[in-house]
Amino acid sequence: MRVLILGGDGYLGWPTAMHFAAHGNEVVVVDNGAKRQWEQEVGGTPLWDVPTLQRRVRTWNSMRQTQIKMRFGDITNYHFLCDKVFGPFKPEVIVHYAEQPSAPYSMGGIREAAYTQFNNVIGTLNVIGAMQKYAPDAHLIKLGTMGEYGTPNIDIEEGWLELEHNGRRDRVLYPKRAGSWYHQSKVHDSHNIEFACRVWGLRATDLNQGVVYGIDTEETASHPELRTSFHYDAVFGTVINRFCVQAVAGVPLTVYGKGGQTRGYLNIKDTLRCVELAAKNPAEPGEFRVFNQFTEQFSVLQLAEMVKAAAHLFIQVSIAHVENPRVEAEDHYYNAKNTSLLSLGLKPHLLTKGVLAKMIEKIQRDKRLIDTEIIHPKVRWKMEK
Amino acid sequence: MRVLILGGDGYLGWPTAMHFAAHGNEVVVVDNGAKRQWEQEVGGTPLWDVPTLQRRVRTWNSMRQTQIKMRFGDITNYHFLCDKVFGPFKPEVIVHYAEQPSAPYSMGGIREAAYTQFNNVIGTLNVIGAMQKYAPDAHLIKLGTMGEYGTPNIDIEEGWLELEHNGRRDRVLYPKRAGSWYHQSKVHDSHNIEFACRVWGLRATDLNQGVVYGIDTEETASHPELRTSFHYDAVFGTVINRFCVQAVAGVPLTVYGKGGQTRGYLNIKDTLRCVELAAKNPAEPGEFRVFNQFTEQFSVLQLAEMVKAAAHLFIQVSIAHVENPRVEAEDHYYNAKNTSLLSLGLKPHLLTKGVLAKMIEKIQRDKRLIDTEIIHPKVRWKMEK
Repeated sequence: MRVLILGGDGYLGWPTAMHFAAHGNEVVVVDNGAKRQWEQEVGGTPLWDVPTLQRRVRTWNSMRQTQIKMRFGDITNYHFLCDKVFGPFKPEVIVHYAEQPSAPYSMGGIREAAYTQFNNVIGTLNVIGAMQKYAPDAHLIKLGTMGEYGTPNIDIEEGWLELEHNGRRDRVLYPKRAGSWYHQSKVHDSHNIEFACRVWGLRATDLNQGVVYGIDTEETASHPELRTSFHYDAVFGTVINRFCVQAVAGVPLTVYGKGGQTRGYLNIKDTLRCVELAAKNPAEPGEFRVFNQFTEQFSVLQLAEMVKAAAHLFIQVSIAHVENPRVEAEDHYYNAKNTSLLSLGLKPHLLTKGVLAKMIEKIQRDKRLIDTEIIHPKVRWKMEK
Repeated sequence: MRVLILGGDGYLGWPTAMHFAAHGNEVVVVDNGAKRQWEQEVGGTPLWDVPTLQRRVRTWNSMRQTQIKMRFGDITNYHFLCDKVFGPFKPEVIVHYAEQPSAPYSMGGIREAAYTQFNNVIGTLNVIGAMQKYAPDAHLIKLGTMGEYGTPNIDIEEGWLELEHNGRRDRVLYPKRAGSWYHQSKVHDSHNIEFACRVWGLRATDLNQGVVYGIDTEETASHPELRTSFHYDAVFGTVINRFCVQAVAGVPLTVYGKGGQTRGYLNIKDTLRCVELAAKNPAEPGEFRVFNQFTEQFSVLQLAEMVKAAAHLFIQVSIAHVENPRVEAEDHYYNAKNTSLLSLGLKPHLLTKGVLAKMIEKIQRDKRLIDTEIIHPKVRWKMEK
């Protein structure tokens, strides 16, 4: 398959690109380097230096038969997307990660909010436009987030909801109530993509992904220069990765508020597998399909306890409840469905003590690289008075 | 009250500004003149020339005691909005019309889609940001549209839906499924505004307005230089206004497809009254309130028959079913609630034969101004193959 990876320099984009190439697909990666600029802005670089995308592509191509091609540019520029990417490549599968991915970043101020929504919504609209023009039969695999749903008091279904109201029935888009400007941008994307499927017959799978954790995939582990970024800072770090780093650094695991916030989680290896399963089983023309892409549900406090238990083999760890910088329920109903990917054959990598211990061990070898100053949250959701 | 009207040069913005001023409120209007630029772009100017906003403000101020102030600028420019508008004026009520308002315009291409969503979503985000900074207790009255809901097979409630699912209950945002990039932009706005209310305690009323018709309000009729724009072209003209012009021009009333498309409608005089009622009965801090702002439901074919019957007093009118340029159901369930504004005291101006006859009569006096070339739809919803 001709697979286009948008956001190919990122935590998930780069491993996804290698995964598809390793399985014999023709892969083009696109990135504009924006994420590394945002890292500078918030002072939160990955734990391990990440070689430039050019260098990683060169390293890959020197080792493997199936080559990866790269185009540097910004998908909010429609001409770039058409003339340099879709026109020449005519992708069959588009995996779209090219979004500003941080809730705290988007809550930094109205500039960051507007930038995030501009970047994500307009970028995705351009992808839809380029598909219509150059690849109307291609399959869009869009990375959404479980955070789009918020924490409703009813079961979370996979993107659609069958409901009865005043004696009549309909199948509607699942009502979403996201908790940050970033999460809202993904809700907007989902609505736009559903419309494009409905009106233009495009095919799309919206992967409402849980929180990803992990350091390595098969391909990143195959050569030191092929690693992917590993963030542990308050802006771009995801919670399990951050807790593992805090454990190693000897600082308390910072649980926001009570820690009852429950979410879906998955291993980075399962991200690749889910995207692959979606690509191999495409949506029908005109179909807007939503998969909830996570393998397990945990509360934040549970995760802290699990990391503490796993780290305990090496080090003493404490847990601190800090003031929650977010506006969110800390104690709520949460029951999200995730059967679609399992029924396509996903075999989850579960979050065991062994998995956590391995992460902690690997981080411990480079303990000196940890900058504890970037872990504590500085962005607050509440209005400044 | 200090009332800020965003989009004060428009069909509804200008009459709203005068209405608030006539009732003794301090009014500032903001506009960037973009609508008149879009009119040039699509070649669809209003039936009657509309004096510049400056000139209309001068005329108003020369006649009336309560003066209107004007600021020329673009609300997608956050610095303009803060430094020239919110900072100096500190509004108590913000009536936000400053959006690209045409579904066909937004469907003209991906450039127009992206422009519409950028203009509307980022503009509204900036308004939210400026409120947070300068007027956190102000009441945002945002013009949304009934088109956000689409045509669900269940009753359309006012913005929120009480539902039961798998034995549990919740109150959720009403699931929307809009039918154009423009309508989608308003769905995005609604989500963003609800989030701002939830997280920052802002107060907002989202007016999901039906299709507006009519030529005059009390104030526009009080002096020829105070008139508002009256569009009848395929891009900016609303259906009743367009049918009246077609009747006068002696061309068939163009019903798209079967004409079973049912929507909510209201007289422009009721728009002003609804906005006034919302302003006088503000939402609570943190409340995101949605009113469905229409007074009657009609199918397109019903409207054509009504215009034909009313015009029959003067002229012979025919009805033509043309190929529907839109992708939409032409025969569907439609039952939308609109009790909130009625319970606040709205006394609807209904669409009687007399009202239509009066519109037709007024248009007939200036029949020579009609350009029939701009009435036929050129923008198609379907993908170009």
